[in-house]
Amino acid sequence: MQTSSTLTRAETWRLLLLVGISLGVLANTFQGDGAPLIASISMALISFAVAFSMIRWLGPVFIKAGLKGKDMAKPRKPEIPETMGAVCAVVYLIALIVFIPFAFYKDIVAATSGGGNRDVVIEDQHIETGRYLHRFPHGKLASYLSGLLSLQSIVILGIGDDLLDIRWRHKVLIPAFAAVPMLIVYFVDFGVTHVVVPVPLQQYLGDFIDLGWLYYMYMAAVAIFCPNAINMLAGINGIEVAQSIVIAVLLLFNDAMYLAPITPYPHPATDSHLFSIYFLLPFIGVSAALLCHNWYPSKVFVGDTYCYFAGMVFAVVGILGHFSKTLLLLFVPQIFNFLYSTPQLFHVIPCPRHRLPKFNAATGLLDTSVTEWTVPPSPLIAMVLDLLEKFRLIRLVKNKEGQIVESTNLTILNLWLVWMGPMREDTLAWHMVGVQIACGLLGLFVRHRLALLVFNTDNRTFQSMA
Amino acid sequence: MQTSSTLTRAETWRLLLLVGISLGVLANTFQGDGAPLIASISMALISFAVAFSMIRWLGPVFIKAGLKGKDMAKPRKPEIPETMGAVCAVVYLIALIVFIPFAFYKDIVAATSGGGNRDVVIEDQHIETGRYLHRFPHGKLASYLSGLLSLQSIVILGIGDDLLDIRWRHKVLIPAFAAVPMLIVYFVDFGVTHVVVPVPLQQYLGDFIDLGWLYYMYMAAVAIFCPNAINMLAGINGIEVAQSIVIAVLLLFNDAMYLAPITPYPHPATDSHLFSIYFLLPFIGVSAALLCHNWYPSKVFVGDTYCYFAGMVFAVVGILGHFSKTLLLLFVPQIFNFLYSTPQLFHVIPCPRHRLPKFNAATGLLDTSVTEWTVPPSPLIAMVLDLLEKFRLIRLVKNKEGQIVESTNLTILNLWLVWMGPMREDTLAWHMVGVQIACGLLGLFVRHRLALLVFNTDNRTFQSMA
Repeated sequence: MQTSSTLTRAETWRLLLLVGISLGVLANTFQGDGAPLIASISMALISFAVAFSMIRWLGPVFIKAGLKGKDMAKPRKPEIPETMGAVCAVVYLIALIVFIPFAFYKDIVAATSGGGNRDVVIEDQHIETGRYLHRFPHGKLASYLSGLLSLQSIVILGIGDDLLDIRWRHKVLIPAFAAVPMLIVYFVDFGVTHVVVPVPLQQYLGDFIDLGWLYYMYMAAVAIFCPNAINMLAGINGIEVAQSIVIAVLLLFNDAMYLAPITPYPHPATDSHLFSIYFLLPFIGVSAALLCHNWYPSKVFVGDTYCYFAGMVFAVVGILGHFSKTLLLLFVPQIFNFLYSTPQLFHVIPCPRHRLPKFNAATGLLDTSVTEWTVPPSPLIAMVLDLLEKFRLIRLVKNKEGQIVESTNLTILNLWLVWMGPMREDTLAWHMVGVQIACGLLGLFVRHRLALLVFNTDNRTFQSMA
Repeated sequence: MQTSSTLTRAETWRLLLLVGISLGVLANTFQGDGAPLIASISMALISFAVAFSMIRWLGPVFIKAGLKGKDMAKPRKPEIPETMGAVCAVVYLIALIVFIPFAFYKDIVAATSGGGNRDVVIEDQHIETGRYLHRFPHGKLASYLSGLLSLQSIVILGIGDDLLDIRWRHKVLIPAFAAVPMLIVYFVDFGVTHVVVPVPLQQYLGDFIDLGWLYYMYMAAVAIFCPNAINMLAGINGIEVAQSIVIAVLLLFNDAMYLAPITPYPHPATDSHLFSIYFLLPFIGVSAALLCHNWYPSKVFVGDTYCYFAGMVFAVVGILGHFSKTLLLLFVPQIFNFLYSTPQLFHVIPCPRHRLPKFNAATGLLDTSVTEWTVPPSPLIAMVLDLLEKFRLIRLVKNKEGQIVESTNLTILNLWLVWMGPMREDTLAWHMVGVQIACGLLGLFVRHRLALLVFNTDNRTFQSMA
């Protein structure tokens, strides 16, 4: 019988085999012109194996250090390790750093006067144009490193958040700080802030409009939104990781469309989407490892660190890959969850500290959690709540006088339980995965088909002007 | 009367004034061709103010989160916040990130086909050659970012070390992991691994020798050594921060020699030393802020995080600035401390968990801590110990049979107390600062004067060949 912090013999052998094969493939991709996409897949598999083992091994260490929490939706409320997302994130960051020589050409410094001066550099530009999935030239290195810096920042700040008791108001801005390196390097290294104007508006604004600093505000807003959005759709076993994996896989699917032979080559967005794939594959690797331990019934919690980290990975690929609008289409359930929550976030309706669905020990099922109105709501709010109930967007309990005494908390998880009735925790998680996939596929369809109504061309079918 | 976690009114006004003036200067340096050195000084002053305030404010938060420790060298053994180095490090990292647009030219991307492609880039190279303290071209950006990545990595791993109970054997390798980003970017971005051969050996080896992967091993060794060396010379109030500030100021002094008018311009090492200054100035800023709270009697502890972080700053400037040999000359007390400790590190002599000097509550002074020999040492070790005592490198206590029952612990702090007798904690810290300054100045003298015996020229007086 294995203890909870060791790998079984079968697991050990499977993981060793996986790592062995992946290392072999990886070593081969390093030669010649390289095969960065294959290298990235190998790296993702190795990350999976390492993260899987580390999470298992570090459980008791985390508990001893006080990084632990109680799972309230279980009959016995077991105490399990918390903040395991930090382990994932560290494995991920190491993978992306080690990946650099596989993704970028080596500049050959042929002459130096010492002191790090690059007096004569032979660049390998002649190879670049000829190949399809080539290594990147050095122009993209700063961009890649800035993405890594933002991810590392969010991990440091996320760990700080998990350790210290930071107020809600301040927490929301953590991703803004972490986005700074990416935005600053964007500023010195690329700095393009003009965007294509939708066709109906082109007669007023011209084909392009330079948004200037507004574009930086927009990028910062994306970077603040994604991590917080993931962090808000949380509270039941596996939901944070599962939704992140769905979004990552859909982004990967979108990226693949730009690389597949159906898209004409050379395409200006090829490199951006290759870039995105390199960030997403190892992310899926470490997240899958975490999900193995975090799915119902959870052996570990992921912590705010994971939510911030996952959201920041999406923000980085969306911003540096220049497809942030597409990205937001994959966040429809999260956006709905946020908008639906606003009355509680802004305290129009009382907001208890935790709004996650409530475990009913008698049935073993989750049901909606509620806000109790000790003072009945004002007539205006009561009217709005009644209206919401009419559209089945909330469930109310009234006393004999007809006053509202209870209303369900405004989260997508509670709403789903209002619609579908009480269910097991893992069933609810599966349902949410289904919702996320359905909304995401619809979003991508809108992006690539209906976008033609407001833009001249879908950029996937862009023809080179050269 | 102020509480221990707020700023006094006088402090608030002084810090606000400092920040106000610095921000004004900083804003001015952004215009035109910029004045990166002035910007860096302003940034250091702002970092000081922010770190000073944050450390004060976060004290109770850290204690509440369990990040606290007892100061054993005080009569009442007060409990004070621990790991405050993490606050410093975060302020430092933000400062270095915000500094990027002040240090690097903005590439003007004049045409893009979308998706982040840099089809036409106007580089500002015409400005670069004409000026003395110019902004860097983009060739150095990847190098700068890789240094930041290594520093962020060491902070993440350092916090992990402070939180979790990591074994001594594993701790030593933490900096090796953190060095990886820097070494990998060095590999793809610069990759020069040949070094100048000392004159006496040139007839055998030629003028240059290509060390290949050995050079990477050497850089990794420097990166492992510096953080651990700082971490080992620790244990009394203020010593970790004070030694780091001394080393940083001496490095700054060395850098300044390459920029001062006494050195012919253009000099190939100018940029490297400018680079080093940009990393060191804000480091001195945040360290000075920490020292205000950490000097005897300490209000906060710095944690392993600070020691690793400080050592890594030195490793980054030494490696990326290409003066790692000079760097090591400033670590003479640390190198001595390491070599002197080896018998205990490798358990030839028993090694208790803590070897810091012992507080004598009766006198209020620190005295040497000792290893007790429950089993007398073997004849060979006893002979060596006797020999060491003859050279006054250790103090022994023997029983009536002449067997060794106690020997002082082998750290430089204990050795100093053997030589000078018991003293107050702050006096010992001041003495160590003196030793560090004396050894460092001697090291720099050796570097710039005596190096001529083994190398053709001191590179500070290098004449441009062009």
